[in-house]
Amino acid sequence: MVDQNKGPIRLGMVGGGNDAFIGGVHRIASRIDDRYRLVAGALSATPEKAQASGAALGLPPDRIYDDYITMATHEAARDDRIEAVSIVTPNHVHMEAARAFLRQGIHVICDKPLTSTLDDAETLVAEVENNNALFILTHNYTGYPMIRQAQHMIAAGTLGQIRVVQVEYAQDWLTTPQDFKQAAWRTDPARSGAGGSTGDIGTHAYNLACFVTGLTLDSLAADLQAFVPGRPVDDNAHVMLRFKEGARGMLWCSQVAPGNENGLRLRVYGEKGGVEWGQEDPNYLFFSPFGEPTQRITRNGPGAGDAAAVVSRIPPGHPEGYLEGFANIYTAAADAIRAHQAGQPLTDSPLPTVHDGLNGMKFIHACVTSSAQNGAWIQV
Amino acid sequence: MVDQNKGPIRLGMVGGGNDAFIGGVHRIASRIDDRYRLVAGALSATPEKAQASGAALGLPPDRIYDDYITMATHEAARDDRIEAVSIVTPNHVHMEAARAFLRQGIHVICDKPLTSTLDDAETLVAEVENNNALFILTHNYTGYPMIRQAQHMIAAGTLGQIRVVQVEYAQDWLTTPQDFKQAAWRTDPARSGAGGSTGDIGTHAYNLACFVTGLTLDSLAADLQAFVPGRPVDDNAHVMLRFKEGARGMLWCSQVAPGNENGLRLRVYGEKGGVEWGQEDPNYLFFSPFGEPTQRITRNGPGAGDAAAVVSRIPPGHPEGYLEGFANIYTAAADAIRAHQAGQPLTDSPLPTVHDGLNGMKFIHACVTSSAQNGAWIQV
Amino acid sequence: MVDQNKGPIRLGMVGGGNDAFIGGVHRIASRIDDRYRLVAGALSATPEKAQASGAALGLPPDRIYDDYITMATHEAARDDRIEAVSIVTPNHVHMEAARAFLRQGIHVICDKPLTSTLDDAETLVAEVENNNALFILTHNYTGYPMIRQAQHMIAAGTLGQIRVVQVEYAQDWLTTPQDFKQAAWRTDPARSGAGGSTGDIGTHAYNLACFVTGLTLDSLAADLQAFVPGRPVDDNAHVMLRFKEGARGMLWCSQVAPGNENGLRLRVYGEKGGVEWGQEDPNYLFFSPFGEPTQRITRNGPGAGDAAAVVSRIPPGHPEGYLEGFANIYTAAADAIRAHQAGQPLTDSPLPTVHDGLNGMKFIHACVTSSAQNGAWIQV
Amino acid sequence: MVDQNKGPIRLGMVGGGNDAFIGGVHRIASRIDDRYRLVAGALSATPEKAQASGAALGLPPDRIYDDYITMATHEAARDDRIEAVSIVTPNHVHMEAARAFLRQGIHVICDKPLTSTLDDAETLVAEVENNNALFILTHNYTGYPMIRQAQHMIAAGTLGQIRVVQVEYAQDWLTTPQDFKQAAWRTDPARSGAGGSTGDIGTHAYNLACFVTGLTLDSLAADLQAFVPGRPVDDNAHVMLRFKEGARGMLWCSQVAPGNENGLRLRVYGEKGGVEWGQEDPNYLFFSPFGEPTQRITRNGPGAGDAAAVVSRIPPGHPEGYLEGFANIYTAAADAIRAHQAGQPLTDSPLPTVHDGLNGMKFIHACVTSSAQNGAWIQV
Repeated sequence: MVDQNKGPIRLGMVGGGNDAFIGGVHRIASRIDDRYRLVAGALSATPEKAQASGAALGLPPDRIYDDYITMATHEAARDDRIEAVSIVTPNHVHMEAARAFLRQGIHVICDKPLTSTLDDAETLVAEVENNNALFILTHNYTGYPMIRQAQHMIAAGTLGQIRVVQVEYAQDWLTTPQDFKQAAWRTDPARSGAGGSTGDIGTHAYNLACFVTGLTLDSLAADLQAFVPGRPVDDNAHVMLRFKEGARGMLWCSQVAPGNENGLRLRVYGEKGGVEWGQEDPNYLFFSPFGEPTQRITRNGPGAGDAAAVVSRIPPGHPEGYLEGFANIYTAAADAIRAHQAGQPLTDSPLPTVHDGLNGMKFIHACVTSSAQNGAWIQV
Repeated sequence: MVDQNKGPIRLGMVGGGNDAFIGGVHRIASRIDDRYRLVAGALSATPEKAQASGAALGLPPDRIYDDYITMATHEAARDDRIEAVSIVTPNHVHMEAARAFLRQGIHVICDKPLTSTLDDAETLVAEVENNNALFILTHNYTGYPMIRQAQHMIAAGTLGQIRVVQVEYAQDWLTTPQDFKQAAWRTDPARSGAGGSTGDIGTHAYNLACFVTGLTLDSLAADLQAFVPGRPVDDNAHVMLRFKEGARGMLWCSQVAPGNENGLRLRVYGEKGGVEWGQEDPNYLFFSPFGEPTQRITRNGPGAGDAAAVVSRIPPGHPEGYLEGFANIYTAAADAIRAHQAGQPLTDSPLPTVHDGLNGMKFIHACVTSSAQNGAWIQV
Repeated sequence: MVDQNKGPIRLGMVGGGNDAFIGGVHRIASRIDDRYRLVAGALSATPEKAQASGAALGLPPDRIYDDYITMATHEAARDDRIEAVSIVTPNHVHMEAARAFLRQGIHVICDKPLTSTLDDAETLVAEVENNNALFILTHNYTGYPMIRQAQHMIAAGTLGQIRVVQVEYAQDWLTTPQDFKQAAWRTDPARSGAGGSTGDIGTHAYNLACFVTGLTLDSLAADLQAFVPGRPVDDNAHVMLRFKEGARGMLWCSQVAPGNENGLRLRVYGEKGGVEWGQEDPNYLFFSPFGEPTQRITRNGPGAGDAAAVVSRIPPGHPEGYLEGFANIYTAAADAIRAHQAGQPLTDSPLPTVHDGLNGMKFIHACVTSSAQNGAWIQV
Repeated sequence: MVDQNKGPIRLGMVGGGNDAFIGGVHRIASRIDDRYRLVAGALSATPEKAQASGAALGLPPDRIYDDYITMATHEAARDDRIEAVSIVTPNHVHMEAARAFLRQGIHVICDKPLTSTLDDAETLVAEVENNNALFILTHNYTGYPMIRQAQHMIAAGTLGQIRVVQVEYAQDWLTTPQDFKQAAWRTDPARSGAGGSTGDIGTHAYNLACFVTGLTLDSLAADLQAFVPGRPVDDNAHVMLRFKEGARGMLWCSQVAPGNENGLRLRVYGEKGGVEWGQEDPNYLFFSPFGEPTQRITRNGPGAGDAAAVVSRIPPGHPEGYLEGFANIYTAAADAIRAHQAGQPLTDSPLPTVHDGLNGMKFIHACVTSSAQNGAWIQV
């Protein structure tokens, strides 16, 4: 029997075949801190592609599977079975795939949004609660060190009571009609869910705002658009936010905003100060204590504390990026998996959970509902 | 009789006494291009302060007035009477003061917002229509060269059909309760109007968005807050926008956002490209043609055209600022006044009018109404 | 007899005819704070142009002169004679024109560099010393508020002992051969002097570095180039600097660096911290106390002190620019002229003097000499 | 016998024990693209630390060595011997360690600068030429995608003939005396070499300038300082550069410039345009075609071509950083090693060689020599 608790974690992957974007990201993220070895996969719904992709990654032939159900049962039967699986398929597959592994006691690391429907999301929450395995959602942007820094400062009261939250996530890649694979499923409600930009990127923005501020959304009013003719889901959304704690906010997500590549940006203002962060320049956090000059705090630089340092690898001025932020989720997941295996309490690293995923689905649902009701305020 | 049509225009001022901010700005703006001479004033509602302020500015003693009614009648009786008057009082005085001079055929240059109430605004529109004098509203941000550049590009179709308008105006000076003069009247509904941040800065943001895009607002949904306890008017506002032409937008204005000094920022996205401009760094316009790298167009630099050049004074790399942008309104007003005196058609310079002011008042009214109706969409 | 000491100063101008750039800048700068009235001029060496330019500016016909010698003598004979004259000709005219007015007791405000030759510079220093009139050199970049802020901080020891000074002034307008007027005289040694980029912009950079740091240059080693074939003066210069106080530095000036419009940039590093400033974004000073986050100090914002405030007009976030910085020199000159007229001690405002100008000429001379000696260190 | 040519390359490491910075960087860089497995190491000159560090990395106990000589001979005797070794010791160890492995036919990936003395460097060049193994120097900054983009554009003539090269590398971590390990050996001539900042970071700047421009340095004039009292090597250097092709340049490196964390910055100007790049924001290249607006080209975004794309992993707007740039060197080294093993010609990927390392040593030597001769021009 292979020792469960030493060395890299044996990892499987569902989805992420040759021409997928996010699968490759997950694989790099899993490797950066040397905490995982990818040893099995059902990398595509198309068997030939699944085989070719597995071979290209050097997986053992007997651990290249044509479908995730087979993979879950076969792996569960092995002594050296995978300890965790990454699910990186289109959204509508998440629930069933995750369930298959959770029921085998295999930990799940799943891409966001949680599922394609709210029903599926609730089903999945129940599955997580009823099985003895961890479920981690890769809201990767929460892994950025300066996001942790901001979260820490707000939790410590540095900004005082939070009043205003401005969050946005703007892209431009759907400005014109697109028919390549990445665009196709993301704009197909059957595979992606009822939300377009709201589901693909709005959930990230919403999650990040809540993660950093610690606030809980009460209700929202949304105005969704599909600017490209014939597009069945939103490609732009304006959302007003009311938080239970009294703060107000705005969320804008768009995939039709030329010049924006991956413009996730968060600004938070409290009684005593404000912070500003942008994903494209993630090593900086701008901190404005009211009545003092704005400070540029850099990752691992002066003014940045332990919250950022524990998810940093290299000195200030040596930029870390998207992959390292993503790796921070994977590495914390590895710590959690090892703790779980050892029967120890989980670390306090802030991993995104299935409940975060459910919240994201509720957010999408509320956006779509509000917009259908001409922007009525909808409780989340 | 003094020749009306030569040399600098004889200018009077109402408001703008010693400790006022915006009065000094108007005076500098009027001087920069040497088109005006300040020769008379009722600079304060407090006679002693009016006298002291006039003396400090070197006005002739007989043209320092204690009130604007006296000033209007006395000036109208002089051979060398003022040709134009700048009104820079708190908002609730604008209408009556403007009326007094318009009825004497004296051209009016008035600070924004137009008035403190919608009724006053409509009254003033009628006064302008019924008198033979020009009325110019100093929506000064429309005077920035790169705003003119953006307007020109959009009008020329460079961005294609406009889809999304993101405009914001964030400040932080009212983060804590303030009782000095600048803050006092701006947070007093009786003097400032029903809108707080919406009136003081939201109108600028709204005006600028419409000016640059050429779009007409159809309706809005607003969520207004007064975060500082006891403040009788909004200090933060979130507004969703629907334009008649189909574009959607968001407007955020805040005076409680630490780290924001005068953060007026506009982003416009169309089918073919996007532009971005920020008031604090006004000499740059970022232009993103879809599918091409973002360009930094500089005032008078390569890629900037005549629309910007005609309101520029110095070469690229030599920054012009707020005062020059403000001066562009004054200088265009001088051209218009001289044309009016000569019986010539006005130039096509895009001067803000009383109708722009009325639109701003309607915007404030709609914001307050929508917010009172829990964010219902209100036609503007 | 007109009272010398009240109201705006009566100003004359030599040079600055219709198509000149810097003449218009001086005129605006003189107007911004309402301290001068332009009443006389010899605006061009070409009489027809002098007349046309004077008429265009609305000068009285009897005070439009065809040459500066006539102007100096005629003005000196008037009761309402000019109190000061601005000299904005090509460099080779500065000395003789300044002398003509100084000898009449008329204060001189002169563009830089001081003269076209070191001999002329020394002659002019003697003239200033031997006449009872002020001489102010418009090293306008020293007028920027955040430059004053930096100067103040360094003088107060905030950075500790200064170690390293990096200054550069990069432009691109001479990247290709140019034959228009602005370029023609600036690249003609007979009119501009032995230095090309070193004289036109290097002197600004050198002056600014000394002004801000308070250091005195000991010696320099220079490598000058004329990259455009046939250009008789340098269009790029690399200079290493050694200061008497032990600091070392580098100066780069170039007029052949595409993408640089007016890129004057200064960085100063001491034992305890560093500052960074760039002319194209002049309202910011970046201050890095060693071991703390970098702060963005804004003009009139938190962290900026009186040294900047006294040369500021408007609140933070409302950008001031090149013309306001230039106006700060003019306004301080007005204060100095009024104090001189009143027999009072001059204010302590740091006005650039004829000695600064002489230093600039020595700098040019040292650069040219060092480069001719293959970069040998030359005492300044 | 293990197949040499499949799967990840078996990698050893010399240096890089528990508290070393650069060793961890090399390990991550080797993992990112899954091309290496670390299987052996002599991780410290202190045996206990070597053992502890090896165990911490999970190395097999029999492949944790106390010294690199033993490691080289033992590994060479194994069937599953390491195929390559990373040398990440202080500089004075590089030559002997590299030689030990090269003589066993084990490929060497070595940190920079090449050695601590010019003699050692020349010895090492001979060793590389006399052995059948590859030698790759980790001038990692050449691995950044936008550096490749700049190199490609210049090689393609986009900037025209190059005139001016401005390169700098500024840090602040040696502003005050330091005695921790990272600082200690870097400021000890016996271990680091005659150059302080020139060796540690100046060589990077010099290498990058040559790499991007394709120019060859002819001579330099340097002024070196050690500002911190008692420091035996330079902590700041100003260097003027003359290239054989006629371009001129400046290089500044400093470790005493507060506010600079890892400020490697390159600007190149040619007859037709300029480019600007900064290491702290590495996903952007600013390109200024003369007479057109400056463009911000982003990694994998519009305007960036294949040269950048082949060393990119993720879409534009998803920042890659220092570790990915470093990984690009490792991955290209893996390609080269596999090609060498297969007897195939090497790919054309621009890997830094031992000759680049020798050039760096000549640069250091020339800087020290020039400075000792009061800035005389020294042929490189």
